[in-house]
Formats: sequence, structure tokens, C-alpha cells
Amino acid sequence: MTANVEMWAVIMAGGSGTRFWPASRRAVPKQFLRVAGNRTLIQETAARLGDLIPPERRLVVAGVDHVALVRKQLPKIPPENVLAEPTGRNTAPCVAWAALEIARRSPDSVQVVLPSDHVIRPAPEFRKLLRAAADEAAQSQALVTFGIRPTFPATGYGYIELGESHGTRGKAEVFAVRRFVEKPDRARAEEFLATGRYLWNSGMFVWSTAAILAALREHAPQVLSPLELCRTAAEVAATYPTVPSVSIDVGVMEKARGVRVIPFGISWSDVGAWPALPEVLPADADGNVAGGGAKVVAESSRGNVVHAPKGEVVALVGVEGLVVVRAGKAILVCPKDRAQDVKKIVDRLSREDPGWV
Amino acid sequence: MTANVEMWAVIMAGGSGTRFWPASRRAVPKQFLRVAGNRTLIQETAARLGDLIPPERRLVVAGVDHVALVRKQLPKIPPENVLAEPTGRNTAPCVAWAALEIARRSPDSVQVVLPSDHVIRPAPEFRKLLRAAADEAAQSQALVTFGIRPTFPATGYGYIELGESHGTRGKAEVFAVRRFVEKPDRARAEEFLATGRYLWNSGMFVWSTAAILAALREHAPQVLSPLELCRTAAEVAATYPTVPSVSIDVGVMEKARGVRVIPFGISWSDVGAWPALPEVLPADADGNVAGGGAKVVAESSRGNVVHAPKGEVVALVGVEGLVVVRAGKAILVCPKDRAQDVKKIVDRLSREDPGWV
Repeated sequence: MTANVEMWAVIMAGGSGTRFWPASRRAVPKQFLRVAGNRTLIQETAARLGDLIPPERRLVVAGVDHVALVRKQLPKIPPENVLAEPTGRNTAPCVAWAALEIARRSPDSVQVVLPSDHVIRPAPEFRKLLRAAADEAAQSQALVTFGIRPTFPATGYGYIELGESHGTRGKAEVFAVRRFVEKPDRARAEEFLATGRYLWNSGMFVWSTAAILAALREHAPQVLSPLELCRTAAEVAATYPTVPSVSIDVGVMEKARGVRVIPFGISWSDVGAWPALPEVLPADADGNVAGGGAKVVAESSRGNVVHAPKGEVVALVGVEGLVVVRAGKAILVCPKDRAQDVKKIVDRLSREDPGWV
Repeated sequence: MTANVEMWAVIMAGGSGTRFWPASRRAVPKQFLRVAGNRTLIQETAARLGDLIPPERRLVVAGVDHVALVRKQLPKIPPENVLAEPTGRNTAPCVAWAALEIARRSPDSVQVVLPSDHVIRPAPEFRKLLRAAADEAAQSQALVTFGIRPTFPATGYGYIELGESHGTRGKAEVFAVRRFVEKPDRARAEEFLATGRYLWNSGMFVWSTAAILAALREHAPQVLSPLELCRTAAEVAATYPTVPSVSIDVGVMEKARGVRVIPFGISWSDVGAWPALPEVLPADADGNVAGGGAKVVAESSRGNVVHAPKGEVVALVGVEGLVVVRAGKAILVCPKDRAQDVKKIVDRLSREDPGWV
């Protein structure tokens, strides 16, 4: 089916955050960092598309402050394919803008919409999943999403309840979405896990350009309409900050009919913060994980996460379960289970000495 | 008495070691580091002598590899006052060489012999102690040493058992040394502490040039004689590696008669390793100590020792009792009570990647 239909990719790179401080800064968010290997996360995201979607059919939506980084890290993507958000407005405006842009160039296309900061392996299997989802989206004109089989009762993700099966596409089985569920508390997350009928909402989507525009028009006209009226980039830049800041999940997916989901049978991580590095990097015999290229020398030390640049050495003696990060001229040391409190440091530095954030 | 007698200082800077790795390296041992403030330990040692012993009467004995560092850090000391050990032979040859050098220039002098890497405060009180000891040494022609009142049952120091009092010099009381005791085990150290009659051997000495040369001639002729025969620096360089490697304590002090000791009534630390920094640097309200000039931001963190250069930031979240050091391109993280195992890391790096040591 997709033999007749152009596939496009939208890489959403508008994220900012400090959960990877001190490596991530306001100026350089996580997607632009070598968190999980020799390439940055956005470079891995682009490379993962391989020949399935060539660079000229990839759009990147990024904050205007990060456009230079996108161009530098993804030099093959044509400059006109980088959409500069004047200000972050969550994912619905981002999806709408990209859909309008693609519609202008290729109205009959199918799009895959991907966060720029996930780690997914292996890439060939991923491309098979994308093709299966694109076939499904083209043929059914449904909005299609990927759902991750939960491995623990996570409270940090939204969930998708599976409905009836719509059969298979290649090796992928397609299900109806019964409902989307916002991030649950621990008890509900445990129930979800026990039933086997819930998947994590991955934030990855596949749909035809026509279908997502129709869905936006129906469910989020206050997002789509102002952007639809713009004829120039300057008009978008002026209009974008005025549209509602809403996620595509809340704005469209939870309201749309006939949404389908494909369970994601391969390795996936959104690398939420430093303690997640063991999901995406190999560990030594003592469970220590090292990223960034530094040499790590560990003595009687177990289960630590280290990130420091190539050409440096990090020596651990008798420590367990620590996060040790060196980036720029900053060092962070904290237990893995306290990583969420790094925010407190970042907030303090924001007030006292904002150059560090 | 010392009004008639020239006072000279011998600063022993031959120490090398890696207990302050990664700040200390073979190329830059502890005495050349800013461990306890804005000046390096050897700079503090020299400055502490003040006007009592001016730079032209200070000798520094250092390993030949460190002579350039000595010249750079102590520019006021005349170049001919820096004695370059071709190889380390412990303290007896170092004392002998310096004594011969001083005898050549000022045979009737009194010398103070000081390690280069101790922290002693306040300096004016220290100079009063030096003057008292010099008076005692000049008048009695005894070898005089300083003893530190023990504050805990240390097993890392030699001890001095006090004999009868020889009265006071200024505010200092002078005692006979009953005996020197090698580093004890814990049980004996506790006994020593309980009696109140034992002091730590500080490794600081005061004696007349004539008296130390006589004592070396009597108790360590195999050290003194070969050096005494040398007439040029080149001859010393050739001879030095052939003399026995022996400490002045074992070679002379333990054998000499009539040795006297002055209890050291002021603040002293030999800053043995990273966990000793709280002895010489102020702590914050949570007992965290920061050296080196870095900004430390601590959240729910207590009793940590941090050392990193000015212009850097070290963020601690939820950690306790850790040593966190950044120096050059290396980072060390270890609990304070595991600091002795840093040696294992250093040994490993010495084999695998000696550039780091």
C-alpha cells in the first residue's frame, strides 16, 4: 500500500528539561546530547529512519533557540524542513504545523510523528513497525499509535487500554484503542500491569496527512485554524504563541474515534533521567554503566551510573547506586533514587547563578 | 640566646604519594597543591616562618623532578638553596645533606627541620615555639623535636613517651624523651592515649648544626660520611643514591641520647588524605567541606569533602560522608572511610594507563 504513498517523518525536538543536568542545559536539551552512544539522541532518531524516509522527507520541529543545533547535528535535512517554534506550545500545535507543511508538499502522504529523544533498537525492526503502521494508517485512515508493553507499574506514563484486534500487518498486530488513561497512581498502575490489557503511551504516532488534519479540524480547531490561515513563516511565528498549549494526546487522541494501536515489540526507552542509562547502555560485571566516553575505574563499586566526556577518567571506590556526572564545568553526585531531586539543585542555581543551568 | 645564633630552616619537600589522587600526581605531590587554602602547602610552610627565618636562610630539599615547582612556588628562595635529590632516600640523607650545606655557610647555626606538607596555625604562635626550641637546642646542644598531643588513638603515627621536665622556654615546656615508639596497633594506641604521657611524633626537629652532624657521625656514619666527602653538587648527585635509605627517626633520633621534646600546643595537621580536609578547612552547617575554590551546592547532603577548582560547580544531592574530587581530567568519588583504598585505583591506573597517576 505505502508503495503508492509517500512516507514523511516529523521529529519533535521541542523538548527542554533539566533531568539530565548538568549535561542538559536550557541551551542544550537532552535530545542534542550523546546520552546513549556516539550519536546524539536526535541523530539516532534521524538515522533510525534509514532509507525508509530520506532526509528530504523529514521535518524537525524545534525551539527557535535550538535550530542551529538541529542544523549542525542533522546537516542532511534541508533547512526549509526545520520548523522553528518561537515558543513551546506542547505537541498539538507542533503536529498541526508539521501536518500543514507536509500537506502543502505532499497531501496524500502518510506521516510518522516521533519524539527526538527516545532510544529504540534494532533500527531495521523499527522500520518494519513503521511500515506496518503506515500501511494501516493509509488503508484504514485511522490515527495509529504505538504502545509499549509495560515492564513495571510506571506512574510516569499515560496508558492505552487495548480493544479488539484488527488483525496483523506483517509481524505487527493492530488493536483498537479502547481508551487513553492519564498517568495513574501506583495502585492503578499495578492493576493495569496485572491485566495485560494496557500499554504505555509512547508518544509516537502514524497517520495520513489527511486524517490528522481532519482530526485536528474536528477536535482542536482552535489549534489548527489560526495556523491554517498563515501563508508565510513570519505569519506562523507571529501566530504560534497565540494558539492553545495542548498535547496531541489530550487535544486529539483521547477524543478521536477509531484510533488504533500497535504493540511495540522491540526495545524502547525514553531515557527519562540519569538512572535510566542502564536501559540503553551496557553494564560491566558489577552493574556499573558508563556513558559519554570517559574511562571508568571502579573498585568495590556496584550499580553506578557514570557520564563524563571522552578523555576523562572517573574513579569510583566503594560506592553503590550513585549517579556521577561531569559535564562542562559541573559535577553532579547523587544516589539513583534521589535523581528526581536534581531539580532542586537546578532551581537553586537558577536563582543564585543561572549560568549553570 | 638565639640572638647570637643564626636560625636556618630545612624544608623537606621530597615526599611523593598518591593519597591526594587525583589532585596529587607523581608530577605534583601534595605539598605543591592548594589543599587547605589559597596557597600550596609548601608555600604555607615557607610563609609560616615569617621574619624569624628569612628566605636566604631557608633550604628546600626536593626530588629533582620537583625543583622547577619549588622555584616557581617559592621564588624568593635563592636557587642555590634548593637541593635536588636525584632519588628519594628517606629523611636521614636529606637531613645530612642539608646539615652539611648549612655547616659550610653557617657552622654555628641552629636549624629547624620541617616537613613541607603540614598545616599549622596560627603562624605567630608557631614562630614562638620555634624560637623556644631553638633556644633550647642552642643552649643544651640536645636534639629537640615537637610532639603533638594525641586527640584520638591514631595508628598512623609514631609516638614519643615523655620523660622528666626540663623546665620552660617562654610558654613552652621542655621534656626529656623517654623513648620513641613505632606506629602502634589500635590497642596500644589507646593505652598511650589513656596515660597522657605520649605524644605523636611530628617529624619536626630543631637542633644546632654541630649537634645533628655529631649525632649523624655517631649513629649514621654510613649516611653522613659519603656525603661529607663530596665537594661538588655533581658529586652529591652521584653519591646520594648509594647511601642507605633510612629515616632520621630510626637512623638517629631513636639512638641519640638526651633528646628533648616540646609539646606542640597549637593546631597541627599533616592532612594525611582527603578525609582530613575538615581539620584544615571550615565546614558548612551540614558539615560539608569544600576546597579548591569550586562552588558547592548541597541538597540533603552531610559530612562530605569536596575538592575541585575555582570556576567549577559540584552539586551534591542526598549523599553523606563522601569524598568528591575533581582535578585535571579526573574525578574521584569514594566514602571517607574508604579513602585508603584509593591506592588500589592508583595502582590499577599505574598499570593500565599511567598517564593518570
